[in-house]
Amino acid sequence: MLDAFFSPKSVAVIGASRDPEKLGYAVLNNIIKANYEGQVYPINPKADEILGYTAYPSIKDVPDPIDLVVIVIPYRFVPPALEECGQKGVTAVVVISAGFREAGREGLERELELIEIAHKYNMRLIGPNCLGVIDTNTPLNATFATDIPPTGPIAFMSQSGALGTAVLDMAMAGHIGFSKFVSLGNKADVSEIDLMSAWAEDPDSRVILMYVEGVPDGQKFIETAKQVTRKKPVVAIKSGVTASGSRAVSSHTGSLAGSEAAYKAAFNQAGIIRATSMEALFDYARAFAYQPPLKGDRIGIVTNAGGPGILATDALEHISLQIPRLSRETNEALSGYLPGAASAANPVDVLGDAMSDRYEFALRRVLDDPVIDGVIVIVTPQAMTQIEETAHAVGRMAKESNKPVLGCFMGESRIQAGVDILWQYGIPNYPYPERAAEALGAMSSYRKEQERRIFGVVPIDVDKRPVHELFDRVRSEGRVSIGDAEAWEVLKAYGFNVPKSRLARGPEEAVEIADEFGYPVVMKVASPDILHKTDVGGVKVNLRTPGDVRDAFDLMIYRAGRYVPGARVWGCQVQEMVQGGREVLLGMSRDPQFGPLVAFGLGGIYVEALKDVSFRIAPFSPREADEMIREIRAYPLLEGVRGEAPADHMAMVDALLRISQLVTDFPEILELDINPLMVFEQGRGAMAIDMRLVLSAQKQ
Amino acid sequence: MLDAFFSPKSVAVIGASRDPEKLGYAVLNNIIKANYEGQVYPINPKADEILGYTAYPSIKDVPDPIDLVVIVIPYRFVPPALEECGQKGVTAVVVISAGFREAGREGLERELELIEIAHKYNMRLIGPNCLGVIDTNTPLNATFATDIPPTGPIAFMSQSGALGTAVLDMAMAGHIGFSKFVSLGNKADVSEIDLMSAWAEDPDSRVILMYVEGVPDGQKFIETAKQVTRKKPVVAIKSGVTASGSRAVSSHTGSLAGSEAAYKAAFNQAGIIRATSMEALFDYARAFAYQPPLKGDRIGIVTNAGGPGILATDALEHISLQIPRLSRETNEALSGYLPGAASAANPVDVLGDAMSDRYEFALRRVLDDPVIDGVIVIVTPQAMTQIEETAHAVGRMAKESNKPVLGCFMGESRIQAGVDILWQYGIPNYPYPERAAEALGAMSSYRKEQERRIFGVVPIDVDKRPVHELFDRVRSEGRVSIGDAEAWEVLKAYGFNVPKSRLARGPEEAVEIADEFGYPVVMKVASPDILHKTDVGGVKVNLRTPGDVRDAFDLMIYRAGRYVPGARVWGCQVQEMVQGGREVLLGMSRDPQFGPLVAFGLGGIYVEALKDVSFRIAPFSPREADEMIREIRAYPLLEGVRGEAPADHMAMVDALLRISQLVTDFPEILELDINPLMVFEQGRGAMAIDMRLVLSAQKQ
Repeated sequence: MLDAFFSPKSVAVIGASRDPEKLGYAVLNNIIKANYEGQVYPINPKADEILGYTAYPSIKDVPDPIDLVVIVIPYRFVPPALEECGQKGVTAVVVISAGFREAGREGLERELELIEIAHKYNMRLIGPNCLGVIDTNTPLNATFATDIPPTGPIAFMSQSGALGTAVLDMAMAGHIGFSKFVSLGNKADVSEIDLMSAWAEDPDSRVILMYVEGVPDGQKFIETAKQVTRKKPVVAIKSGVTASGSRAVSSHTGSLAGSEAAYKAAFNQAGIIRATSMEALFDYARAFAYQPPLKGDRIGIVTNAGGPGILATDALEHISLQIPRLSRETNEALSGYLPGAASAANPVDVLGDAMSDRYEFALRRVLDDPVIDGVIVIVTPQAMTQIEETAHAVGRMAKESNKPVLGCFMGESRIQAGVDILWQYGIPNYPYPERAAEALGAMSSYRKEQERRIFGVVPIDVDKRPVHELFDRVRSEGRVSIGDAEAWEVLKAYGFNVPKSRLARGPEEAVEIADEFGYPVVMKVASPDILHKTDVGGVKVNLRTPGDVRDAFDLMIYRAGRYVPGARVWGCQVQEMVQGGREVLLGMSRDPQFGPLVAFGLGGIYVEALKDVSFRIAPFSPREADEMIREIRAYPLLEGVRGEAPADHMAMVDALLRISQLVTDFPEILELDINPLMVFEQGRGAMAIDMRLVLSAQKQ
Repeated sequence: MLDAFFSPKSVAVIGASRDPEKLGYAVLNNIIKANYEGQVYPINPKADEILGYTAYPSIKDVPDPIDLVVIVIPYRFVPPALEECGQKGVTAVVVISAGFREAGREGLERELELIEIAHKYNMRLIGPNCLGVIDTNTPLNATFATDIPPTGPIAFMSQSGALGTAVLDMAMAGHIGFSKFVSLGNKADVSEIDLMSAWAEDPDSRVILMYVEGVPDGQKFIETAKQVTRKKPVVAIKSGVTASGSRAVSSHTGSLAGSEAAYKAAFNQAGIIRATSMEALFDYARAFAYQPPLKGDRIGIVTNAGGPGILATDALEHISLQIPRLSRETNEALSGYLPGAASAANPVDVLGDAMSDRYEFALRRVLDDPVIDGVIVIVTPQAMTQIEETAHAVGRMAKESNKPVLGCFMGESRIQAGVDILWQYGIPNYPYPERAAEALGAMSSYRKEQERRIFGVVPIDVDKRPVHELFDRVRSEGRVSIGDAEAWEVLKAYGFNVPKSRLARGPEEAVEIADEFGYPVVMKVASPDILHKTDVGGVKVNLRTPGDVRDAFDLMIYRAGRYVPGARVWGCQVQEMVQGGREVLLGMSRDPQFGPLVAFGLGGIYVEALKDVSFRIAPFSPREADEMIREIRAYPLLEGVRGEAPADHMAMVDALLRISQLVTDFPEILELDINPLMVFEQGRGAMAIDMRLVLSAQKQ
């Protein structure tokens, strides 16, 4: 669908210039220099010919159809030029010109105008305020960046054009190759969502990288990414995660940075691998792009130096990869071949005087061992080390295997030739063992994410009707807040257990109800006019006898009348008192970018004082709900300490899924808190004791 | 004191060889090639001359005195050769030969023999099983590594020789320079402690780096490092931190990896900056070595690209550095000079079309601004960017300032010339903004560490005598474990408050005591023969009336006799019942490498189930005790939640310091637990309710 951007049959440059100082010259020149094979049309009312190509005063004067137009003229001329593109039937336009949303209110209006024109003519638009588009296979370099990077399987999109130039320059130095490169600019139309979808189907791209400052449509972003990451890894770096960073984003492109908690949840659920630095982004990309998938978490290390082997071991274990014992056969074969002082255990230390034959033998054996899923080969340049021969040996062994092999040739001057040779075999080299380990960690995350995908979102059978009716009624009364018995109606409709509860209109009726429920009971004054019941003594807990109940009834009725004169008082709600469970809290608030952000934590101090909360964006799967519960630091308390039985895990998963569905079914729920959900011992379920929810004034 | 290793007037190589395949050739050749200016004596019984130098059959045949001897012969000949060195009066020997501790039990015996000989003759010994020693200023390259690195202010020691070769090779590629390089090998004699002390006084070294697998004498290591880090930064990478890594260390050099908690505490207290990767080690080193100190935490960013500016901001804030608003003057000057679309706020965005003049103006203003302590200059290679001119401008501005400036020229091919120019001005370049930010973070840690040093360890006035007497008495009875009333004697001697408590020999006496203390009380059966009192019903709490006390007395005496026949029962201990504080736990165990490791945590589930504990090695300062308390995740609970008053912070600091002194005064205390220390509200102190301690069988 976005093909016209990447493999157009013809390209026009509006604003093409003869002046080498102008961007319009650079763009045209780059297209030509990169050996673009289609038709090229410079558009410039003041020239007949530019760089050997016939120039036209307007796009409408070009006699042939045009697939892609690049606009690089002052901002005030962009809207009419875009209008002409529409009239000409162009479907893909890159607007490099700046002076739009990033330039304040007037710029934003100009940008909205662009969007309107694009929609009118069904054109897709990249930019404005961007660097342009590259496809190394077409080849097309429709940017004003000097160089076209080497061809390779990495597709890269960046919200920051300047960061893109740095990446392109880095690529020129070799050992990394790109299929596509897009600077997204202000994302007036084409965004990460469109490019991910398109690139998921692109046979030239094995991995998708993105630099993101903010995404426009969070739910669609997650949905799309979920589909795309089934097909190929997506690695992203999200900037603006801290308060200052987030301010810096806003001042940069005016995009909303969003809450870090929501991004973290969203990227996790979408299966996007998050890189914490630019360096990590490209470290991961090279492993994904050039090596076969890592099918398990068991890593072998072959090294000629103990120290770096230990550093690799530490780094791998730190990210929960395993350094397993080798199988007996491998161990014996290695012991038989290697010198006595060598280590035939994992990490395999072939010793400082190892020539390439020792590496070749050891690597072959380790790669062949079924207990090993991937290998790091560490080479330090010692006196007798054969850098180049060893690189060739590593390359040959890796080619024969379907397991990933990452190089860690350490040093610089002496190892460079070896690193170049590794590269000929498609083996990325990492100058430090920690970085190789982390790249394997990213590969492992991707695989686990794939495995996790089997568990999709499962709809739960509920009766939405009473909830619809309740919400309509509440709104018709001009209210937006729901609690107590009304909240229980919602909870019951969604399959939650709630405490037994009934309205008593007099003290004797209260005693009858309490007798039926069993003591102790809780009582609450029932009045639509008293919101903060506790403040007026309208809540009593742990009432143990009929006498307690009678006293409580009369006292609450008396106080209600005294403290809130004129309040309608219907009586008292008598309620089963639930004891003996662990209290957890389920909450939801709406993130401006991603929608319903559901929170889970232990009740009391754990959420409030210790901020020990996990988040996911609804709707989520049973597997995700399970992870949410395990993610909190206080999870051991739910597993049971000091001989306690574990809390009912499935009941918590179930409760989270029901909340996920509730807030998805009813977008008008703005906020929600179940506090507490009382969770009983394993097998005994859970009960929602209290819920508050806030609706939007309008039905959504 | 170790001068003979680094600037010897003469060097002999025992095992010097004419065969270029032999290490003995490499070492001699390296000494000569590196232009060593002193006397050189090859020692080889089978040659008259090697590489143009007169050879001698034995060290004893050399007519002149020798400062430094390098031994590179098969292991079985090393002890006699070392003996001859001693007889000759040599004071410094490097043993490169392997085949010692790392080679099993027999090797260990050979190594002990070396140590004995060295001690006998008062020789210092580096190695065995090492790469050798380099001093770039002498110049001396007494290693078998091919190259001598460029001269510079970084002194590097490594327990791993192979890792050393990688580092040397990296250095050859430039942009980093070393003063000294030592491969420590098995550390039979000279260890990190000796080198740190020596290098602290070395005017050629501005920063000390170390790769450590294990340290031999933890307390001395900390003491030495504390002194050294007052003078210059020490940056270390510790390997073997994970379980697998730690096994890998043991198999590598047989050194004890030690517990990660103890290392973490030790490095922290010693003021050593811990790098989490090799890359970080050298990133930090270059900032310390080549830039002035960072005197505060306020960082300015100058960039020609928004995206990387945000990444830098995120990374800085993540490690708690500040990105302050610029002063009004700076802001106005920048606004006046920069184009309208530029950002005159911090990060200062000079825009993609910035030439070097804009960088120069902006950087000068930001460096001059008193609200800024250090600067990161980000340059992406855009179409109009003047890489080299900008690098010169940055260099000039940095030279005029006493604030650190780090470069972040991003890319590779196009920026390389700029990076080389920065280097001429001593400005390290980091290819990604996150790495520059982390280097500043290391500089900030070092400064804070210096500030923290003002607070030293303060001895507390205590009466050790009763504790000595008690321990003697306990040991004389063949016991090693102390609890209850005996433990209170220790606590009282060290100035702790303990609950009022007295022995009652009969029920009426128990009631008298309870009347005096006030109800409720706690009672415990008093018997030296009943260790687990709770198991035999020998503890009763919350006794509220004289009747309760009488019943408890009789019941406990009856049960003690029934469950532990023959037990000596002295009566019951009646004890004030302490209520209304927050329970914390103070513990101590002895780490095999660092000694008394003191632990702090909240009582109950926080320590047991949530592992929320902080550690320091005793003795520690009030400032360190304060940090220990703030470090636990549950600290907000001590500050008070839900309107609670804060717990008495100074009382906890005081308790930790008293424990620190107790375990330092009495090395025979192997383990100790105060559980709980009841901490009352701010200003109301704390009380130690219960303590157990375990003594070594022998007085230490």
